[in-house]
Amino acid sequence: LDYQHVQVPFEITLWIMLASLAKIGFHLYNKLPSVVPESCLLIFVGLIMGGIIYGLNDRSPPVMDSDIFFLYLLPPIVLDAGYFMPSRPFFENIGTILLYAVVGTIWNVFGIGFSLYGICQVKAFHLQDVSLLHNLLFGSLIAAVDPVAVLAVFEEIHVNEKLHILVFGESLLNDAVTVVLYKLFRSFCEMPTIKSVDVFAGVGKFFVVGLGGVLVGLTFGMTAAFTTRFTKDIRVIEPLFVFLYSYLSYLTAEMFHLSGIVAIIACAMGMKRYVEANISLKSHTTVKYFMKMWSSVSDTLIFIFLGVSTIGENHEWNWPYICFTVIFCLIWRALGVLVLTFFVNKFHVNTITSKDQFIIAYGGLRGAICFSLVFLLPNFHRKKLFIAATTVVILFTVFVQGMTIRPLVDLLAVKRKRESAPTVGEQIHIRFLDHLLAGIEDISGHWGQYYWKDKLEYFNSKYLQKILLREYDQPKSSIVLLYEKLERKHAIELAEAGQLGHAPSHPSLLHSGFLCSNNDRTVITDKKLEDTLNPDVLENIQEILARNLYRIRRTGPAYNRHTLPGETEPVEHAKEILILRHKSP
Amino acid sequence: LDYQHVQVPFEITLWIMLASLAKIGFHLYNKLPSVVPESCLLIFVGLIMGGIIYGLNDRSPPVMDSDIFFLYLLPPIVLDAGYFMPSRPFFENIGTILLYAVVGTIWNVFGIGFSLYGICQVKAFHLQDVSLLHNLLFGSLIAAVDPVAVLAVFEEIHVNEKLHILVFGESLLNDAVTVVLYKLFRSFCEMPTIKSVDVFAGVGKFFVVGLGGVLVGLTFGMTAAFTTRFTKDIRVIEPLFVFLYSYLSYLTAEMFHLSGIVAIIACAMGMKRYVEANISLKSHTTVKYFMKMWSSVSDTLIFIFLGVSTIGENHEWNWPYICFTVIFCLIWRALGVLVLTFFVNKFHVNTITSKDQFIIAYGGLRGAICFSLVFLLPNFHRKKLFIAATTVVILFTVFVQGMTIRPLVDLLAVKRKRESAPTVGEQIHIRFLDHLLAGIEDISGHWGQYYWKDKLEYFNSKYLQKILLREYDQPKSSIVLLYEKLERKHAIELAEAGQLGHAPSHPSLLHSGFLCSNNDRTVITDKKLEDTLNPDVLENIQEILARNLYRIRRTGPAYNRHTLPGETEPVEHAKEILILRHKSP
Repeated sequence: LDYQHVQVPFEITLWIMLASLAKIGFHLYNKLPSVVPESCLLIFVGLIMGGIIYGLNDRSPPVMDSDIFFLYLLPPIVLDAGYFMPSRPFFENIGTILLYAVVGTIWNVFGIGFSLYGICQVKAFHLQDVSLLHNLLFGSLIAAVDPVAVLAVFEEIHVNEKLHILVFGESLLNDAVTVVLYKLFRSFCEMPTIKSVDVFAGVGKFFVVGLGGVLVGLTFGMTAAFTTRFTKDIRVIEPLFVFLYSYLSYLTAEMFHLSGIVAIIACAMGMKRYVEANISLKSHTTVKYFMKMWSSVSDTLIFIFLGVSTIGENHEWNWPYICFTVIFCLIWRALGVLVLTFFVNKFHVNTITSKDQFIIAYGGLRGAICFSLVFLLPNFHRKKLFIAATTVVILFTVFVQGMTIRPLVDLLAVKRKRESAPTVGEQIHIRFLDHLLAGIEDISGHWGQYYWKDKLEYFNSKYLQKILLREYDQPKSSIVLLYEKLERKHAIELAEAGQLGHAPSHPSLLHSGFLCSNNDRTVITDKKLEDTLNPDVLENIQEILARNLYRIRRTGPAYNRHTLPGETEPVEHAKEILILRHKSP
Repeated sequence: LDYQHVQVPFEITLWIMLASLAKIGFHLYNKLPSVVPESCLLIFVGLIMGGIIYGLNDRSPPVMDSDIFFLYLLPPIVLDAGYFMPSRPFFENIGTILLYAVVGTIWNVFGIGFSLYGICQVKAFHLQDVSLLHNLLFGSLIAAVDPVAVLAVFEEIHVNEKLHILVFGESLLNDAVTVVLYKLFRSFCEMPTIKSVDVFAGVGKFFVVGLGGVLVGLTFGMTAAFTTRFTKDIRVIEPLFVFLYSYLSYLTAEMFHLSGIVAIIACAMGMKRYVEANISLKSHTTVKYFMKMWSSVSDTLIFIFLGVSTIGENHEWNWPYICFTVIFCLIWRALGVLVLTFFVNKFHVNTITSKDQFIIAYGGLRGAICFSLVFLLPNFHRKKLFIAATTVVILFTVFVQGMTIRPLVDLLAVKRKRESAPTVGEQIHIRFLDHLLAGIEDISGHWGQYYWKDKLEYFNSKYLQKILLREYDQPKSSIVLLYEKLERKHAIELAEAGQLGHAPSHPSLLHSGFLCSNNDRTVITDKKLEDTLNPDVLENIQEILARNLYRIRRTGPAYNRHTLPGETEPVEHAKEILILRHKSP
């Protein structure tokens, strides 16, 4: 036995296997996932696993490595999120999302940090040694809403598109703020004195980190699109480029201390339309499928590891600090959403209702990002307290809020997602209105979103498409594409239902030509064959033969006085076949 | 800049990117791959890369790590080979393949080993310190034909199916022999004395390694099939199980010192039919696509690394030893093929022609497996000589034989692969003959391949299918499945050609209902829209509208005295639309 040799890949494979089997297990009982979100169940599995490992080894189970999380588990989820991001609602609400993500997160960080510092001043709590900077550092890591947790819960409750994009977009874009504030406070903690220059540098850094991420992402996205122009002869490696370039964008951004999450989202959103046009249909299915698969497995692993890492002796328990952390997280988020929405609603016609505000505030789940960040903290004597507080906040938000949000959505009758896809008519209307509004904005001199969208579209069709698309001279309208997609889907349905009768396929005609000459011999002479073949199968084959045989004869006299085309009964076909067979020697 | 942090994934991604871009590069020039096999070009790229690294760093470039090769690069290729293995020709020729793989490889090992030992006795060559055991050890690693190299070359020359499966099957199954002999001689080298017990243990081990591999593989394959029974509700992780279980089978076999290659092939071939029946069509596309993609990238990386690893100071040059190695490799293989084929042809009606024999002998390419094995050798004073000899043999076989085999195949007019897929009629005939022959074998009491195949099929349909398939009560005949596939393909073609006219799809009817009410307004009022939309696109949309609009009206009076259905000209449709539009206010 040589376990050493294969240990690394073997254990990785086993963990992924465990995650996948856990997922299957939950879905075997249909009732369970409808009550408890999958993320809670997975954390629960992780807790049990952690308990078993702790019990067997008598030492803390291994903690989720922050490097593994940030380098291998997080990118697939964010890539999936970015690639399947509904771009229209995202860009329509980009202002609001940015407000929540930037101002809201800063508000939460400082709110939580300062009020926890206030708690630390109470002598009875024995927390006087936690400095303001440490509290702010803790605030910076606990304030950020987690995209993985939000996605896991919001995917199951089907709230309306706007509400979903507001919470989800915020959770993705606040990464830039979190990165900056976390690194800023961490370096402040290690500095002897803090100059005001450092603070300003921090503010400047914020723009660099966010916009730099976007720039890196778009660069790689465009390169990816450009690369797929040349893959016509080797379709099989097309999907690879989507993954490679996105991952490179994430790694490059991380390397330069930019926001990797922002970079990979920009990359995915930027490349999507060009890549889709360049690669083959099967490649695209593979890309979509594998992205979903990968993110789903990553997501599962993250929650299981969260559970496993919770067990152990990494925690220092201090009731007041932990309880107040949970309370402040809730209060400051609620206040932040209320205040920001007040301003947002002032400038918008399509306001955010108070029900929606409640769900936005309540949906502020914390997850694995906080957890990894708290483990990345430099060692200081209260780190274990921070770990304990972070774990409690995560478990509280995922379990209590995650499990109650669905009943609350039902109770409040929050507007749900519309079930049906928009019709072609609606799509034409939307497009028409877009152009109209772009024209109005152009005339009135207001540089609004429609103006910019129009300019972008112009730039896209004038320059980008020519460089990035293989067949740029025939850009198909999305309506035509939709129509083709529907027709294709319908054709498959028809073929599967066996109703593609009016246009018999040439290959099948050809084959049935072979068939009818061999048919009688084959079926009648070989008793053994009939024994082995299932009667259903035989019936199936005969039906196919019957249909095609009949049709071959029918192709001659296509015009028939007494029957409408396609109206003849299958019984009649069968009868004719029977007659034919009796006649044959 | 924080390169340390992202180094490992970043460099892996860059290597894969290089491999993919190299692949694209070759395919841009269509003429190049038709003359030089891709493997040669890739080794060449690797040589250049290695030269650059050597020149810049002034030290040997990193050598391909044997662990990376055996644990990460080889499994995808073998999995792909096993999954897409044409099972019928493989099992029809299994006896011949095993003879070549087992007896042939042993013949080559001892032939090359002993004759090189003979060369070592010549005093003028200064090789007397290379013992017989070391020569045999070297023979065991250099004798085995490499599946990766064979696949890379034989995929491009399209020889007939039997010839292909003979060479390729041998290259896969000789792994068990290679593993046993290599490990045996390596342990003999370290032993002070060799007892005859050890030799017999070695012979026994051979069966354990081979059959153990098959057993491990089949176990994991059946488990995989069983697992996919339960994935109906989470289609998205279905493809994962195919990869996870195959990889686990490989790792488990390696862990127990069994043949990983044999295990993964058994796993892939065992699970294929059940998994295919259980998983969805899209999952299956993803599985196939990703397997091809992965193996193609692995393959590319292996050849590039081979080139890179060649450059450097790992070599000890000794003209006679290296030249005689190449010569003996060629001679012993040719002799082995001739002798073995003589016996094979005695017992078969369908003999192997002398042309085929030549190609089998000539197609014995060596590749990365030898290369990794030679680096895995324990350190002794002549290791660098062995590395040099192995490198030369690999480069000679891949470059000289790989590049000349295509012209030789043309010159000898070796029977090629038939281009067209078998028709349904042929398939029925083949199946009929199978049953007939199974019956004849049953009656005559001869337990031949048909007898066993029939028994296996019975066992499969009686027990395995019920356990492993989700919908085991409706097993579809392969003919029905083929027919459905053809119909589906045809339907898509029809839909794409826009000829699915006789059966307008319901969704498209619905939409065109919307469309016709909006159409006039949209097209006429919005000048801007018309400017932005390409005239082609507009034409496209109008054509779709025209067709559907016409059809809606036509669904009422389906019977028309003067026209056959589907005969009306598109011009007429357009005219009618025009009239309609003029009439509308």
